Amino acid sequence: MIKTTSLNVELGDRSYPIYIGEGLLQKKNCLDQHIKGKQVLIVTNETIAPLYLDNLIAILANDQTVKILVLPDGEKYKNLESIDKIYDALLENNFNRTATLIALGGGVIGDMVGFAAATYQRGVNFIQVPTTLLSQVDSSVGGKTGVNHRLGKNMIGAFYQPECVLIDVNVLETLEDRELSAGIAEVIKYGAICDNDFFDWLEINMSKLLGREKSALKFAIKTSCEKKAEVVEKDERESGIRATLNFGHTFGHAIEASMGYGIWLHGEGVAVGMCMAASLSNKLGTLTEQESNRITGLCEKAKLPIKKPGQMNEVDFMKYMRVDKKNTSDKIKFILLNGIGVAYITDDVSTKMLSNTINGV
Amino acid sequence: MIKTTSLNVELGDRSYPIYIGEGLLQKKNCLDQHIKGKQVLIVTNETIAPLYLDNLIAILANDQTVKILVLPDGEKYKNLESIDKIYDALLENNFNRTATLIALGGGVIGDMVGFAAATYQRGVNFIQVPTTLLSQVDSSVGGKTGVNHRLGKNMIGAFYQPECVLIDVNVLETLEDRELSAGIAEVIKYGAICDNDFFDWLEINMSKLLGREKSALKFAIKTSCEKKAEVVEKDERESGIRATLNFGHTFGHAIEASMGYGIWLHGEGVAVGMCMAASLSNKLGTLTEQESNRITGLCEKAKLPIKKPGQMNEVDFMKYMRVDKKNTSDKIKFILLNGIGVAYITDDVSTKMLSNTINGV
Repeated sequence: MIKTTSLNVELGDRSYPIYIGEGLLQKKNCLDQHIKGKQVLIVTNETIAPLYLDNLIAILANDQTVKILVLPDGEKYKNLESIDKIYDALLENNFNRTATLIALGGGVIGDMVGFAAATYQRGVNFIQVPTTLLSQVDSSVGGKTGVNHRLGKNMIGAFYQPECVLIDVNVLETLEDRELSAGIAEVIKYGAICDNDFFDWLEINMSKLLGREKSALKFAIKTSCEKKAEVVEKDERESGIRATLNFGHTFGHAIEASMGYGIWLHGEGVAVGMCMAASLSNKLGTLTEQESNRITGLCEKAKLPIKKPGQMNEVDFMKYMRVDKKNTSDKIKFILLNGIGVAYITDDVSTKMLSNTINGV
Repeated sequence: MIKTTSLNVELGDRSYPIYIGEGLLQKKNCLDQHIKGKQVLIVTNETIAPLYLDNLIAILANDQTVKILVLPDGEKYKNLESIDKIYDALLENNFNRTATLIALGGGVIGDMVGFAAATYQRGVNFIQVPTTLLSQVDSSVGGKTGVNHRLGKNMIGAFYQPECVLIDVNVLETLEDRELSAGIAEVIKYGAICDNDFFDWLEINMSKLLGREKSALKFAIKTSCEKKAEVVEKDERESGIRATLNFGHTFGHAIEASMGYGIWLHGEGVAVGMCMAASLSNKLGTLTEQESNRITGLCEKAKLPIKKPGQMNEVDFMKYMRVDKKNTSDKIKFILLNGIGVAYITDDVSTKMLSNTINGV
């Protein structure tokens, strides 16, 4: 008996369930109701394919035509060329509008498969089977899909919701330590921006997460997905509150892009970015020094970096932060904290204060 | 005083007006209300730029930052590489989510700019300024955007509606005869699938359209846009009736793709495709021989091709028709006629009958 927790993302006719449990990739036919046609393309990467591809194929209905595309692993392959490979696989197999794409992998695979699904024949169904903690708690939920451009991260994309998200926490057993910590960065983010109690819980239970205790992981994943779903339900297309989910990402994206995608993991950039945003909040007087230290401390406990890369200076940060998607004028938008658990958006930050923040972290 | 007819495409919060008139590209500020930010990228092609680009720039508000991208002209450039050039132009100029893209050109430009707008930063606004009859009566209305893939036409794309469509019939003065006829093919299509009276009118007034009489052109454009808007309002994402707009396109796309995009114009392929669909309808007993001849006759009157390319055989047609987006199983879907003015969708066509049709036209 496999126990499944499920929660729903409520978006009218684009609503979908998130299933969370141990061993879901052993549960025959659990995806059947979300696959309307007879054509399935599973897209995964070279790291995940040997681990979980057979399991996924085995739980699909026997009358499906199942094709496989294995892409190279890594953020540097998150580009239009990889999307073109997905189109090729679909077209070479004569896949039609009733086809379903399944993303088996981390955030890179999920974002790309979602975008390919959004744009193949003007839209086909897709399912997320996230295999990293980061994609389980963040990127697989909410419908942001897309790829990077040499001039900026996630600059090409679409809002496109999956049919369902299947989260098997057992897959985290094979996740590298560094990837686990990177996922925890996004978990910390939810505590920081909207749930003080969850932040407290994380401070107490961080060692359990790092020790991969299933019940702690399930609680952290479920809480994170709930927080994300609440925000996405209020603001699917990010005209307001959804931007708060970008806490730590303004600085973080600059680190990722400047260092070259994949050198720093997304969650690692976000961790340093959260420390910077906390420091900036403190300078603006909306976060105490003690609270700012709690954020840095929790990231450190999660074995995440808390200092910017040595080779990056202010100019490097500014170059990338100027092209952030949140900006709607020449000013850079920041997500900052009004105490732990309360986020706000501002573009009213002086150059000097920004400079001090970047140089100070 | 420039007289403007306007009609609305009613799609809830995605509704937008179509403006039709003589000299609209001389009407200062007529687009202002549809441009929300201060960043405008006009995308056009090498043929249209010298003719109308200055006019378009001149009618925009003086406080806009206006950037220009001129792409090479032709269907063979309707691919992801051209889309990437649009992304480059947007990112190199630091264009943000409040940017507006304006498509100044025919269907190729309109489809590509729409797709770039749908996918840049997960969606920015765009405006259609169609400069060919074909794009005025068909592709600029309804939100189908996208590019071709080497394995099939319009296989990559999105449904994405513009903020408005600006149709200045004066631009048709510079349109090549062959392009004018190609546009008339889509006009004939509306008569054939849903308006018997309009079909009669076209039989009587074809010489006026070919003679570029403004009032005849305006009537034909307005009627075509109305017909298209009606269908799109009922079925924006083509789950049913919208497919009837593909009358003639199943065979037509095969001709275009097989000959190499741009060798045959889209409307030329559609014309032969309509003759084939009429012939097939006749074979199935839903269209009299006389009615089928009226369709062929009207295409001929419009100086459109009515016979398939000599070098194409049945195998060539089948290869491309199998990957048609309308198909949802192994069977090919056809849009056929139940008398002039009434279309229906079927996949119940025997191989023999299809073979006879292809070989007979």
